[in-house]
Amino acid sequence: MTHFEATCFETLDYIKNSYSARICQLEEEKKAGKKIVGTLCLFVPDEIIFAAGADRVILCGGKNDAVSIAEQYLPRNICPLIKSSFGSIVNNGYSGVKSCSHFGLVDMVVAENTCDSKKKTYELMGDYVPTYVLDLPQKPEGPAAVKYFLEELNKFKGIMEELTGNKVTVEQLKKEIISSNETRKLLHRLYDLRKREYPPISGLDMIKVMQKQYVLSAEDFKEALRTLINEAEQTRADSIAGSKDEFTHRPRIMISGCPMPGGSTKVPEIIENRGGLIVVEESCTGTRSFWDLVDENKDPMTALAERYIKIPCSCMTPNDRRIDNILELAREFKVDGVVNYTLQFCHGYNIERYKVQQALKNAGIPVLSIETDYSDSDVEQIGLRVDAFMEMLS
Amino acid sequence: MTHFEATCFETLDYIKNSYSARICQLEEEKKAGKKIVGTLCLFVPDEIIFAAGADRVILCGGKNDAVSIAEQYLPRNICPLIKSSFGSIVNNGYSGVKSCSHFGLVDMVVAENTCDSKKKTYELMGDYVPTYVLDLPQKPEGPAAVKYFLEELNKFKGIMEELTGNKVTVEQLKKEIISSNETRKLLHRLYDLRKREYPPISGLDMIKVMQKQYVLSAEDFKEALRTLINEAEQTRADSIAGSKDEFTHRPRIMISGCPMPGGSTKVPEIIENRGGLIVVEESCTGTRSFWDLVDENKDPMTALAERYIKIPCSCMTPNDRRIDNILELAREFKVDGVVNYTLQFCHGYNIERYKVQQALKNAGIPVLSIETDYSDSDVEQIGLRVDAFMEMLS
Ligand code: SF4
Ligand code: SF4
Ligand code: SF4
Ligand code: SF4
Repeated sequence: MTHFEATCFETLDYIKNSYSARICQLEEEKKAGKKIVGTLCLFVPDEIIFAAGADRVILCGGKNDAVSIAEQYLPRNICPLIKSSFGSIVNNGYSGVKSCSHFGLVDMVVAENTCDSKKKTYELMGDYVPTYVLDLPQKPEGPAAVKYFLEELNKFKGIMEELTGNKVTVEQLKKEIISSNETRKLLHRLYDLRKREYPPISGLDMIKVMQKQYVLSAEDFKEALRTLINEAEQTRADSIAGSKDEFTHRPRIMISGCPMPGGSTKVPEIIENRGGLIVVEESCTGTRSFWDLVDENKDPMTALAERYIKIPCSCMTPNDRRIDNILELAREFKVDGVVNYTLQFCHGYNIERYKVQQALKNAGIPVLSIETDYSDSDVEQIGLRVDAFMEMLS
Repeated sequence: MTHFEATCFETLDYIKNSYSARICQLEEEKKAGKKIVGTLCLFVPDEIIFAAGADRVILCGGKNDAVSIAEQYLPRNICPLIKSSFGSIVNNGYSGVKSCSHFGLVDMVVAENTCDSKKKTYELMGDYVPTYVLDLPQKPEGPAAVKYFLEELNKFKGIMEELTGNKVTVEQLKKEIISSNETRKLLHRLYDLRKREYPPISGLDMIKVMQKQYVLSAEDFKEALRTLINEAEQTRADSIAGSKDEFTHRPRIMISGCPMPGGSTKVPEIIENRGGLIVVEESCTGTRSFWDLVDENKDPMTALAERYIKIPCSCMTPNDRRIDNILELAREFKVDGVVNYTLQFCHGYNIERYKVQQALKNAGIPVLSIETDYSDSDVEQIGLRVDAFMEMLS
């Protein structure tokens, strides 16, 4: 992977050292009376939080070290993402020991009823930080689902107004929708570059960029994206380090499945270290976070309800939209093979694997399914399976 | 447990040999043009199925042998209940080999979005049998939830009308509500007898009676209950086999947690074989199935929505109603200790365990938590833990 590292942009370095700066920023904001809202899922619309004048931090955990703390309260056999997130919240700021992490700065967590593990863990979270839960319908199709979700979003808007003391106006919402759409469009532009025969950014670097959303403010993330895109668009194929030959033999891989919060880059590292080139991530730390725009010409709350309810997460049923999207991405990004990435004990994505595999099989696209956690114990074993997969694709 | 077996009623014998009779009954019904609807959850109101003139069979699997069939399609690490249910459906009647089981006689499965595993498995079930999915809100409190669920029930009513060709009238619904309430009241009467110092029925026998709902028609079940109650009410304490002394030393146990479909009596057997007396089951094969009546004086569809949305299943959040109910049952049935029974990989009940344990601890009621599956591999280990628990309670 050396030639990919050589393509790292200055911006990438810039956003690599942003955590402590963000903590300072949040502390300043708090001093100035701004409220900080923590979220753990794409289904909670940023636009409403920002329109109320609050800042937002994403609390999804990707690190293994918080897992054991959570296991004092939660069953061991639930997914590492929720254990890591809960462990960090229990450990930081809310249990007497106020650490300097962003977990300790949150005034309210806005949670959502998506998977069983999150839904039930949120009940315990309330002991550590004020937690508001947004309900979701589980069948996303049809007007009844949008109506129910819209009602939930309206209640949530009220909660944000209460928390911040600010009224959420239609104008403010429209402004935030436009702003979030800008970020989505930038991400589309960046991902478009990866459709090239020689993408100017490796999958691992792209995933690390996406993970920076967990740390940077929305504005800083957008700014970083702009710089990154400018540089990337100017990168000519032949200036990319590494010989063309080497590139030619790299199978183009899509990662599809569970999110990869900051810290969890095990599988993409293995893939790119063993000869693969990740060109797209069908994931909440990938396309699912920005694929659809919010309609700027509609009543903003309705537009938000309609856009967010369509996120193709496995908590929805049926979730054919995800299958269609996977096939569409495979075509657009000229994917040679798919790595179906799931976290252990994530029933939703693990059961949906069957449908994903079937659809890819019918489309003639090879798939490798990897179910893993945040530990390093299976690195070698996954490596061997990835080797065999790459060999098959070459 | 010999003295309990001596208290088996004739009725119990009657309902013990009912499976083949039920198959004949269903086959006759089908010949006469009646539709057979399969369900897998308490949240699907029988009243609507019956009001449409269809019969209903409960498809929840409690047997281990169907599990391995399901594991060809589903992840191994999901709960045995859903694997057993899905395995039986794949194996029976829908995959070419028409067996004589009731799975093969079902015209439509009416499923529900409760836990992740069921929600996602239902998507695969559609390949084997027509499957209709009822959506549930996940926050049960407040008018929005009832409204959304009522809309879902109205759609479901339409589906039943389509399936059967019969119109579901208000009169028919009211009649079915009264009839189902009768069954609920009978179960209350039967459970009331277990509040006695010397209950006329063992927990294991009671659980087997409850499991007969999976086999008998609703009418036959009600009839069997009537006979059983008549006999039980006439049983004088001193005529119950076994010495008073022996009884006195049996700790009174509540089982609380996941359902126990037919075939899964491992844990109650261990408890009663090792000196415990199960006096109440807070379970879908226990109190959760009959505790609340449907209001007979309201618009029937509204009354159904209001009653069913209140079922204290762990798929709801918050589920404080369940905690309150556990404490209420513990008092009413003079419980000495609670066995918190969960199926492996059932995230909902396993995470909720923390709250159940805390509530019982605060109430000074000892609790033993057992997480298990349908296999026999942990019988000895559970036995040792139950022994220790019984010793502590004696
Ligand atoms: S995978 Fe689903 S539940 Fe998880 S963050 Fe994404 S949208 Fe939310
Ligand atoms: S990875 Fe799966 S189980 Fe874990 S939090 Fe996300 S949806 Fe839930
Ligand atoms: S435990 Fe919940 S999901 Fe399962 S049958 Fe009971 S009500 Fe339905
Ligand atoms: S026991 Fe738990 S996981 Fe299994 S079907 Fe019932 S609610 Fe779902």
